[in-house]
Amino acid sequence: MKALHFHDQLRYTPDFPAPENRSDEIIIQIASAGICNTDIEITRGYVPGFNGIPGHEFYGYVASVPDASYDCLIGKRVTAEINCGCGKCSFCKADLERHCPDRTVIGIVNRNGAFAEYISVPLPTLVPLPDTIPDNSALFIEPLAAALEIQEQMAILPDHRVLLIGDGKLAQCVALTLKPTGCSLQVAGRHKWKTALLQQQGISTTLDQTSLPDHAFDIVIEASGSSAAFGEALTKVRPRGAIVLKSTYAKGFSFNPAPVVVNEITILGSRCGRFSSAIGFLENHRPDLSCLISKRFPLTDGIMAFETAQRKDTMKVVIDCIPER
Amino acid sequence: MKALHFHDQLRYTPDFPAPENRSDEIIIQIASAGICNTDIEITRGYVPGFNGIPGHEFYGYVASVPDASYDCLIGKRVTAEINCGCGKCSFCKADLERHCPDRTVIGIVNRNGAFAEYISVPLPTLVPLPDTIPDNSALFIEPLAAALEIQEQMAILPDHRVLLIGDGKLAQCVALTLKPTGCSLQVAGRHKWKTALLQQQGISTTLDQTSLPDHAFDIVIEASGSSAAFGEALTKVRPRGAIVLKSTYAKGFSFNPAPVVVNEITILGSRCGRFSSAIGFLENHRPDLSCLISKRFPLTDGIMAFETAQRKDTMKVVIDCIPER
Repeated sequence: MKALHFHDQLRYTPDFPAPENRSDEIIIQIASAGICNTDIEITRGYVPGFNGIPGHEFYGYVASVPDASYDCLIGKRVTAEINCGCGKCSFCKADLERHCPDRTVIGIVNRNGAFAEYISVPLPTLVPLPDTIPDNSALFIEPLAAALEIQEQMAILPDHRVLLIGDGKLAQCVALTLKPTGCSLQVAGRHKWKTALLQQQGISTTLDQTSLPDHAFDIVIEASGSSAAFGEALTKVRPRGAIVLKSTYAKGFSFNPAPVVVNEITILGSRCGRFSSAIGFLENHRPDLSCLISKRFPLTDGIMAFETAQRKDTMKVVIDCIPER
Repeated sequence: MKALHFHDQLRYTPDFPAPENRSDEIIIQIASAGICNTDIEITRGYVPGFNGIPGHEFYGYVASVPDASYDCLIGKRVTAEINCGCGKCSFCKADLERHCPDRTVIGIVNRNGAFAEYISVPLPTLVPLPDTIPDNSALFIEPLAAALEIQEQMAILPDHRVLLIGDGKLAQCVALTLKPTGCSLQVAGRHKWKTALLQQQGISTTLDQTSLPDHAFDIVIEASGSSAAFGEALTKVRPRGAIVLKSTYAKGFSFNPAPVVVNEITILGSRCGRFSSAIGFLENHRPDLSCLISKRFPLTDGIMAFETAQRKDTMKVVIDCIPER
């Protein structure tokens, strides 16, 4: 099958072995898959140990099932939870497969991803898509789930003053999911055209973070991926407030713990979330997410898609794995 | 009056001006005051901007009151909350004077402390001591309040596995306050004689932290003040667990946020606590704290007391400001 494969570098290959049927997995024909910053970090070698097909934001159609009892799934439009747990540990039993110590992660840890014609996923991870969710919205289920994870970890209430640092793909999803909480939301971005997208959604933005008052926010969400932003977050959060680290950072940064201790700040790491939350969000609020897609490429031009995704003038880049259906 | 005064360096002075009566403050004759690591950091110049008399762990007797309506307090054994708030801001109104942006802090921020014959404290900070609390226990109210602050910030339950890193003065107080929670407590120390004090209280300790299982603790409390311990805490805490930063750190340290984000760790800065909690703890549990006092010096030998407090073979050093009463 056609696929993008990473081994030291990302290559397009027309003849990668297609996944074989397994008794505990489902094979999906990929329709489209979005490029995430984690995918870009994989191609830069920042995700240690990963060799294989990246890609974890996707939807497709069930192509093959373990046995006839699953035949009703054939052709269904689906996606899959990216964290594949062992099913036995305390985390899996608590519906927290995303923290299973033996997990594989689609396109990130020991499991091939979605920049290919087909993918094989464990049965429990399969997520059928309601008809009310458009294809372009389905591509954002994984990042929306990650955004909603913040609200699983902490309550965000209407009287909270929230500062979101970042205006990229993930920050846009975070902002969209924060809006219905009714919190007082301010987004500090760096790109006029990206903050304009947020303004269109009625979200308050600024390009001049220094103009915001210090120690005035109950919660600061760092979703820019910039290590300097952590220092800025410490300046903006109020005593006893919280800083949410929502980005994956390629490198460490220096950290002065004194203000964290003196002001009793909570720092909260936040990663993947439940797909069911994201689907509920999409069904309830029906945001138009097409405006976040900057460019589309066929799978055969996948390398060009990755080059484009790294340009500052693009938001989400989508790779279409079947040209049309 | 006799006092220890810090200005560039700590000096003993026999003729420091005694505090004058104010309409909103109470003057206390200091009986005794303990030396805390923060005091030592002040004498090393690590607490920017402080010039004055250090010392914030003390008890004494009310010597002078604003007017006759307070006469009943004269001679009462008391201590004082160290954070003196403005009384008007949202933090003060929420009983969180310790986060008032305009606060003074006894012996630490813009207010003279307790290594002297007399101290003047704002009326609302005065804390009368119940007769059931022995003098030596009264000296530990401030660090016990700081230790109990952890439990104000987060619930510590009987099924929690808690690792406490550190065996010094503050760590001993943290361990004592954790014990009644019924949590599974393990203390990782560096000094056999200090961990022995904990063992005498029935607390499990180890000198070989590497022997403890990785990612096995729900909560790791860093109370050693060592920046390396933060990395060790990250290794020991389970996914979705919490690291409490209980020490004041003189310097910054490098910080790799990746495991914090991937494992969704909560990092919680924790500082001062409510004296009422510490008094309740002392009344309920009546721990013997005399064993934590290594040496006592008269105020006239205060410089020697500070030298002794910095030796590795001492725990709490106490300065007696009135020889006997």
